[in-house]
Amino acid sequence: MKMHQILFLLFILLSSTNALVQDFCVANLKGPDGPAGYPCKTEAKVTVDDFVFSGLAKAGNTSNIIKAAVTPAFVAQFPGVNGLGLSLARLDLAPGGVIPLHTHPGASEVLVVLHGSITAGFISSANSVYVKTVHKGDIMVFPQGLLHFQANAGGKPATAIASLSSPNPGLQITAFALFGNNLTSALVEKTTFLDDAQVKKLKAILGGTG
Amino acid sequence: MKMHQILFLLFILLSSTNALVQDFCVANLKGPDGPAGYPCKTEAKVTVDDFVFSGLAKAGNTSNIIKAAVTPAFVAQFPGVNGLGLSLARLDLAPGGVIPLHTHPGASEVLVVLHGSITAGFISSANSVYVKTVHKGDIMVFPQGLLHFQANAGGKPATAIASLSSPNPGLQITAFALFGNNLTSALVEKTTFLDDAQVKKLKAILGGTG
Amino acid sequence: MKMHQILFLLFILLSSTNALVQDFCVANLKGPDGPAGYPCKTEAKVTVDDFVFSGLAKAGNTSNIIKAAVTPAFVAQFPGVNGLGLSLARLDLAPGGVIPLHTHPGASEVLVVLHGSITAGFISSANSVYVKTVHKGDIMVFPQGLLHFQANAGGKPATAIASLSSPNPGLQITAFALFGNNLTSALVEKTTFLDDAQVKKLKAILGGTG
Amino acid sequence: MKMHQILFLLFILLSSTNALVQDFCVANLKGPDGPAGYPCKTEAKVTVDDFVFSGLAKAGNTSNIIKAAVTPAFVAQFPGVNGLGLSLARLDLAPGGVIPLHTHPGASEVLVVLHGSITAGFISSANSVYVKTVHKGDIMVFPQGLLHFQANAGGKPATAIASLSSPNPGLQITAFALFGNNLTSALVEKTTFLDDAQVKKLKAILGGTG
Amino acid sequence: MKMHQILFLLFILLSSTNALVQDFCVANLKGPDGPAGYPCKTEAKVTVDDFVFSGLAKAGNTSNIIKAAVTPAFVAQFPGVNGLGLSLARLDLAPGGVIPLHTHPGASEVLVVLHGSITAGFISSANSVYVKTVHKGDIMVFPQGLLHFQANAGGKPATAIASLSSPNPGLQITAFALFGNNLTSALVEKTTFLDDAQVKKLKAILGGTG
Amino acid sequence: MKMHQILFLLFILLSSTNALVQDFCVANLKGPDGPAGYPCKTEAKVTVDDFVFSGLAKAGNTSNIIKAAVTPAFVAQFPGVNGLGLSLARLDLAPGGVIPLHTHPGASEVLVVLHGSITAGFISSANSVYVKTVHKGDIMVFPQGLLHFQANAGGKPATAIASLSSPNPGLQITAFALFGNNLTSALVEKTTFLDDAQVKKLKAILGGTG
Repeated sequence: MKMHQILFLLFILLSSTNALVQDFCVANLKGPDGPAGYPCKTEAKVTVDDFVFSGLAKAGNTSNIIKAAVTPAFVAQFPGVNGLGLSLARLDLAPGGVIPLHTHPGASEVLVVLHGSITAGFISSANSVYVKTVHKGDIMVFPQGLLHFQANAGGKPATAIASLSSPNPGLQITAFALFGNNLTSALVEKTTFLDDAQVKKLKAILGGTG
Repeated sequence: MKMHQILFLLFILLSSTNALVQDFCVANLKGPDGPAGYPCKTEAKVTVDDFVFSGLAKAGNTSNIIKAAVTPAFVAQFPGVNGLGLSLARLDLAPGGVIPLHTHPGASEVLVVLHGSITAGFISSANSVYVKTVHKGDIMVFPQGLLHFQANAGGKPATAIASLSSPNPGLQITAFALFGNNLTSALVEKTTFLDDAQVKKLKAILGGTG
Repeated sequence: MKMHQILFLLFILLSSTNALVQDFCVANLKGPDGPAGYPCKTEAKVTVDDFVFSGLAKAGNTSNIIKAAVTPAFVAQFPGVNGLGLSLARLDLAPGGVIPLHTHPGASEVLVVLHGSITAGFISSANSVYVKTVHKGDIMVFPQGLLHFQANAGGKPATAIASLSSPNPGLQITAFALFGNNLTSALVEKTTFLDDAQVKKLKAILGGTG
Repeated sequence: MKMHQILFLLFILLSSTNALVQDFCVANLKGPDGPAGYPCKTEAKVTVDDFVFSGLAKAGNTSNIIKAAVTPAFVAQFPGVNGLGLSLARLDLAPGGVIPLHTHPGASEVLVVLHGSITAGFISSANSVYVKTVHKGDIMVFPQGLLHFQANAGGKPATAIASLSSPNPGLQITAFALFGNNLTSALVEKTTFLDDAQVKKLKAILGGTG
Repeated sequence: MKMHQILFLLFILLSSTNALVQDFCVANLKGPDGPAGYPCKTEAKVTVDDFVFSGLAKAGNTSNIIKAAVTPAFVAQFPGVNGLGLSLARLDLAPGGVIPLHTHPGASEVLVVLHGSITAGFISSANSVYVKTVHKGDIMVFPQGLLHFQANAGGKPATAIASLSSPNPGLQITAFALFGNNLTSALVEKTTFLDDAQVKKLKAILGGTG
Repeated sequence: MKMHQILFLLFILLSSTNALVQDFCVANLKGPDGPAGYPCKTEAKVTVDDFVFSGLAKAGNTSNIIKAAVTPAFVAQFPGVNGLGLSLARLDLAPGGVIPLHTHPGASEVLVVLHGSITAGFISSANSVYVKTVHKGDIMVFPQGLLHFQANAGGKPATAIASLSSPNPGLQITAFALFGNNLTSALVEKTTFLDDAQVKKLKAILGGTG
C-alpha cells in the first residue's frame, strides 16, 4: 500500500462525507431552545469535557426539612446529553429523608440504589399502587409521567442514581405545585378535596400565596 | 383509452403494491397490547363504523359529588384511533362542577369550550401557574404530563371537548392517587406534607385503605 | 417544620433543577423554523395567554362558492401548541357547503360535529371508500395523509371541530393543487386522465395558469 | 491468552446479553400487523435471504395505458425492512409513460434516475409547484404526503428507483381514488368541482361505480 | 360530601376511562417481539416485582481474559422497561480489565463510575477521539452508535453503571464481530486492512472459523 | 360559479391556513444545527433546485488504495432532505474495490446494485454473519448501527446506490477509527486484542498517531 494512495482515499471518503456529519449535538445553552432541544455547539469547539460531568460526585446537602437532595445532570447542567434521549440525577436521602411525591412530565426513570435502603413506589392511572423497599444494587423503574416517590427506609444515609429517558425530563413535586405558588387556596381546595385549613397551613410553610 | 389496458394497469399498480399496505390500524382490542398500541383488525373486516364513535354525543351524568363527568373516546372506546397519535374526551361540568387536578402521563391536551365558562389552569415544572377563565369557543392547551384542572366558572352547565395527543393518554387524578387506594397514610403524609387527620379523612371519603 | 428549612429545600430542589427545564415551547414565530418546530419563546415572557386562543369562537365566513370556511388554530395562529403534537381547526358549512377533497400531509384528524349533520369520508390506499353521515356529537377519524372531505348533509348550518395530530398539519386541497397554480394543463391532464376542456375550465375558475 | 479464558469471557458477555437482543425484526407477515409494523420472525429462522430481494431486477410490464409500472419492495414484498424506516420501489416508464399524480400518506421519497429522463414534480400545501426534468444519475426529493408525479421526458424508456422513508409507505393515486371505486359521482363532483360528464367518463374507464 | 356520591363519581371516572389504559407495558417475553418491543403482560398479572430487578447487585465474574464483566438489565432480563426507552447495565473491571471497543447499534449511553477509575473514550464519525479518565462519581456520555470502550485506569477494581437510551440497546463488540464468528479471513482482511496472520491468530483465540 | 366568489374562497382558505405551513424544511446550512436537523431556509427563497441534486450522476474516483469511492447526498450536500428521514449515497467499486467495514451510527441502509456484482454482509449483535453476493438489480438491507461492508465480487466495475434512513446518517469506518487518528496504540491494542506491530503498521499507513 502506498501512503499517497491512502491519503487520497481518506480525502475522498472523509472530507466529502463528514463535513457536517452530526454524531452528537452538544447543547449551546445560549441558543434558543426548540421542541427537540438546544442548537448544537460548533463541532470544532467540542472537547471531551463536554461529554463528562463531575457534578454528581458529591452528595447533595440534606440538612433541610426533607433531609434529602436531588442533584440533576440534565441538559442544563450536562450539555453533552442534548438530543440523546437520556439524562441522570443523583438522590441523597439522610435517615428519615424523602423525595416527595412527584412526576417527570416527559420521561420514564430507572433508579439504582448505591447505598442504603429506599422505599419507593408509583401509582398507575388505574390507581394501582406499586411500592417496594429496594436495597443497594437493586434497580426499579417508574413509567413515564406517573406519580412516584422515594423515602429512606433505613437508619443510615441512602444514595441513588436516577436514569431518565429524556435530556430534559422536568420535575413536578406535587406538594410544591399545590402549596408553593400563587394558585389560589379556593382552586386548590376545589380541585383536590383538601380542607381550607390544611391548604392554608401548607401554603404558609411552602411559601405559597393566594 | 381501452378498458382492458386500464384494468391491466390497475392490476399492476394496485394488486402488487396494496396487498398489505397499512393506512390505518383499527385496534383489535382482544389482541395483546404492545408499546405502540394494539394489533390491527384484519382490513377486510374494517368498516366505516370503526372510524365513527357516537359515545360523546350524550352528556355524562353529573349527579355526583364533583358535579362533573369525563366521557372518553380513547382507543379502548374508539379503536379507530389506534396508532394515529390522538384521541378525544368529553367534559361535562354542572354548575359548581370540577374536574379535579390531574395529569395525562403521556399526552398534551387542547380543550375546546362548547358551552358555558370554565376556569382552567396548569402548573409548570418551574412552579408557575397558568390559570384563565375561558368561554364558549375558546381553546386552551395543557402541555404534556403537567398538573391541570377544569372548573365550571358560571351558573349554568359547561361542556368541553378535550383533544389529546395520544390514542391512550392515561388519566391520573391526584386526589384519587393520594386517597383512593392502598398507599399507606404514613407514606402519603411523608411524601406530601399533609396532616394525618386530613389524609385519613379523605381516605375515608374516597375509599382508600392503609 | 421550620420555614427557613423549607426555603432552603426549595432552593436546593428548584433553583438547581428548573433553571432551564422545558415543559413547553411556545413558538417564537420570528425565529427560524426547524424540522421539529419553532424555537421557544423565553419562558420569562410566557403568559397564560400564550396557551389560550379565541379565534375559533366565531364562525368563519361562508359567503363563498363552497359555502364553507376553515379556521385554523395551528402553530402559526396558536403558538402554544408548538412541539406538542396536536392542533385544532374549526369548520363551518352553510347549507350546501363543502370542504373539498383534501389531505393533511403530516397528520391524522378526528372531527367532532358541534351542530348539524355532515357527510364525511376518506379513501384508503387500497382504494376502499369509507363514507358516513355523522350528526351532532358524533366523532370520526381520518387516518394520516389520506384523501378526505366533509359536506353539509342537512338544510341548516353545520359546525365541527377538527383535531389534528400535528401542530402544523398542512392542508392540500386537491382541486386547488390541480387547477389553482401554474402546473401546466398538459401535465395535469397527463397525470390525472382529465380532459383538456375540463382542466382549462377549472383553471380559469380557480385562478390557475399554464 | 488462554482459550478457555476467552471462551469463558464469551459466555459471560454474549450468552447473557444477547439472548433476546433485537438488531432487526424481519416481518412475520402471518402475524397481526401493529402500529409499528409486523411481529418479528424468530431470529433462529432468519437467514441472509431475508435481507436480500431480487424483485426489482426486472423491468415491470409497461404494456398498459399509462405505459408505466411500479414494482414495490415494501415490507409486504421485502420483510427485512420491517421496523427499519425505509423501503424501495422501481419505476419503469416507457416512452410517453407516466406515474399519475399520487401521494404516499406516510413517507417522503427520493427518486434516483437510472436511465432516461423524467419530468417530475410536487405541489406544496402553499400551492407552489416544483417541477423539473431530471436525467440519469439525478436525484429528486418529494416531501411527505404531498401530491407528486413522474413522467417520461424523452423518446426512450426511463427507469428510476424510489427510496421511501417508511417500510410501508402507502400509495394513493388521485385518479383511482376519485374514479376507480364506489365513491358516488355526486360526492366526487361536489368535492372536486369536476363536471358530471367528466366524472362519469372516467368512472367508466377506471372501473368506478356510483 | 356523601360517600355514595363519591363512589358514583369513581365509577363514572375510573371504570370508564381506565379499562384498558396503558401506563406501562411489562414485556411478555413469550410473545412475538415487534419493532416497538414485546407485547404487554396482562395488567392484572403485573406486580411491583415486574418493576424491580436485583441482578445488578452482585459483581460480575471478572476471572476471565478481559478481567471484566458486563451484566445487563435490558428488556430480556428486566421486562418492566419494555417500551419505556431506557435500560441499564453494570460494568465490573478488575485491575487491568477492559470492556473492548464496541457499539450499541440503537442507543446512547451515560456511564456513572461507582468505584475506581476508568479510562473511557469514543470516536466520532469525523474520526475525532474523545478520551478521558473518569473517577468515582463522574459521568460520561457516549453518543448513539459510536465506537467506545472502558478500561480500568487504576490498581483496584472499578465498577460502573451504564444507562442506555433503549430497552434493547444491542451490544456489538468489534473484536468478536471480526474474529469470533464465521466471517471468512479473506473478507475480514479485505474490509479492515489487517494482516492475514493477525486475523488468523485472533480467530483461533476468539473461536472464529473461516 | 363566479370568479370573485372563488377568489374570496381562496383568500379564506389559503391565506389563513398556509401562512406558515411547513411541508418541508430545506436546510439553511449556515444556521445552527439542532437535534432534529438544520433550521429551514425561508420558503420564499426555496426553488425546485433545492429538491434536486446531480452530484451522484458521476462516478467517484476509484484510483485509490481501496479502489472504491463513496459519494454522499446527505443533508450537507443535499439540503432538501433535511427533516425528511432519508438520504442517499453512491458507491463505486473498481475491480478489487471494497468499502471497508463500517457503521452508520443513526441509520439503516438499503443497497441497490446498479452495475456489476457485490459481496456484501453485516454482523449482528448476536454475532451472526449475513453475507451474500448480490447482482445488478438486487437490493440488500443493513439494519441500523451494525457493522457491514461491500466488496466488488467480479472483474468489472460495480456501482450501487445506498438509501439511508436518516438525512445525516454518519459513517464510521472501523479501520480509520482504529488506525487513522490519535487514539493511542496502547488503547487500540487493549480494546481490540490486536498486536502492537499490527496496530503500528496500520497507524503508519492510515495516518494515525500515538
